[in-house]
Amino acid sequence: MNVAVVGAGAVGTSVIELAGEYGHNVVAVADSSTGVVDEGGLDSDAVLSRKRTQGTVGDGTPDDVLEADYDALVEATPTTLGDAEPGFSHVSRALSRDRHVVLANKGPVAERYDEIRALEADSGGDVLFEAAVGGAIPILSTIDDLNGQVTAARGVLNGTANFVLSRMAAEGLGYEHVLAEAQDLGVAEADPTFDVEGIDAALKCVILANVLYEDTYTLEDAEVEGIDGLPGSALELAAEDGRTIRLIGEVADGEVRVGPRLVPENGTLAVSGTLNIVQLETQHAGRLNISGRGAGGPETASAVLADIGRLPSP
Amino acid sequence: MNVAVVGAGAVGTSVIELAGEYGHNVVAVADSSTGVVDEGGLDSDAVLSRKRTQGTVGDGTPDDVLEADYDALVEATPTTLGDAEPGFSHVSRALSRDRHVVLANKGPVAERYDEIRALEADSGGDVLFEAAVGGAIPILSTIDDLNGQVTAARGVLNGTANFVLSRMAAEGLGYEHVLAEAQDLGVAEADPTFDVEGIDAALKCVILANVLYEDTYTLEDAEVEGIDGLPGSALELAAEDGRTIRLIGEVADGEVRVGPRLVPENGTLAVSGTLNIVQLETQHAGRLNISGRGAGGPETASAVLADIGRLPSP
Repeated sequence: MNVAVVGAGAVGTSVIELAGEYGHNVVAVADSSTGVVDEGGLDSDAVLSRKRTQGTVGDGTPDDVLEADYDALVEATPTTLGDAEPGFSHVSRALSRDRHVVLANKGPVAERYDEIRALEADSGGDVLFEAAVGGAIPILSTIDDLNGQVTAARGVLNGTANFVLSRMAAEGLGYEHVLAEAQDLGVAEADPTFDVEGIDAALKCVILANVLYEDTYTLEDAEVEGIDGLPGSALELAAEDGRTIRLIGEVADGEVRVGPRLVPENGTLAVSGTLNIVQLETQHAGRLNISGRGAGGPETASAVLADIGRLPSP
Repeated sequence: MNVAVVGAGAVGTSVIELAGEYGHNVVAVADSSTGVVDEGGLDSDAVLSRKRTQGTVGDGTPDDVLEADYDALVEATPTTLGDAEPGFSHVSRALSRDRHVVLANKGPVAERYDEIRALEADSGGDVLFEAAVGGAIPILSTIDDLNGQVTAARGVLNGTANFVLSRMAAEGLGYEHVLAEAQDLGVAEADPTFDVEGIDAALKCVILANVLYEDTYTLEDAEVEGIDGLPGSALELAAEDGRTIRLIGEVADGEVRVGPRLVPENGTLAVSGTLNIVQLETQHAGRLNISGRGAGGPETASAVLADIGRLPSP
């Protein structure tokens, strides 16, 4: 498959790096200000090396990339809320040209899902977005494989918040202390708002609700509480009772909720560090638990590349 | 899809019961001595009721079912070793008529995998067998979704053995006592050989090896040790060290091994009761853990029906 990649952050650059291993050909790459196109196939190493040394991927424009002759567009620009731009327009342009789209960006499928599905219905292209929920964990493809059997989902969908809670519980340290440590380690971003306020987990749950239910959801439909400012004493009290606290996202009975919840200390949901876990409730097959790495460049890129492998040939 | 079901045990009857919910039509059913065919669609309730009350599904022969006009054959007869008959012949006949096959029976894909793949290559039909490994847990479809990324697999693949070990550890009871209890509860069969000697887990690992590696494996290639006769003192010693014992199957570096192993007491592999878990090692996405119900009629039938949903339309 000939692939165009829009967004040259951790996920986009990993897609460029690994695409060849999966038998795909990167023909165009855009970052926020430049673009490069070679419809015969780019030299990935050269593009990545230029990005590292000069900060840009090419001498062309991002628009050149969007107009290039590719089979599948990988949308890996940062998630934005509300109008989900510029991701939404990238998806829309690709579909209007009957091209496939694979999203790592959560915005368009969380905030404008009905519009994306309507554009897809009128297009020869398909839209897949496994990488937007749980990084490397194959959640959406499992839901798809189970053919409508999944009725509800819950789990730990933000590795940063989980790292903070795990460390607070294990070391008896305060929230601010552990958050600073996570920032030093690169596990938390300089502005950790999305992660610690539960917004990132809520967007993933909104996407799950969009996949599971007939109604369309946006972030506004989610009841969201974060872990920012959670007192260490709450974790101590939980531990006295054999429990701990995790930031749990839940999609059930048509509702989307995210918040700190008490879970058994050695239970399935109490994954440690930056791991994610999702529990799927099924009609006839009981509960399935899937856990793994919910973030990271190569991990998330592997979900993108698995999606590309599932697309029908052009 | 028009479905023929061969084998009317727990899995076969659950497939018949649930097929309609998944949009499929059961047109033929065979048990070991009789058969019934209605190419317009059988009355599933009537077939199941007759099986319960009279012990047979119809007045015809199993051969009528194999010759019926169906799209996909569900092979749910008991697993046999060596020549894997009569399952192998059922698969072979279906493929020679360009029909799809979905197996719950482990025998043909564990013992004669190369022949099954050769027959499939010459056929218009496809062969799927998710239900043969880990019951309800979508292991093979996840491996398929990950497009060749999975390098090794390990886990708990036999619920009966896991139940016995969990109970021995939790209650400090002896092997014979817990096995008898499991038989009373219907968790262990009257002849538990396949489960407690590790043969069932080994067959599942052999199937995983066949899917993961280029070579073809059979049960003879597996190094197998069971839990029969494991002394309770082994579990006590493990517990003193924060560990427990599980029957772990492993497929790695071209080897298939099954045996009792020490695992951390609260670790991911120490699932309790009859649960199964599989860990998949991937090239770029780290380790994935998938756990759920590894056996049971409706659970295993849901894997069969998910496979049917993945087949190309006739």
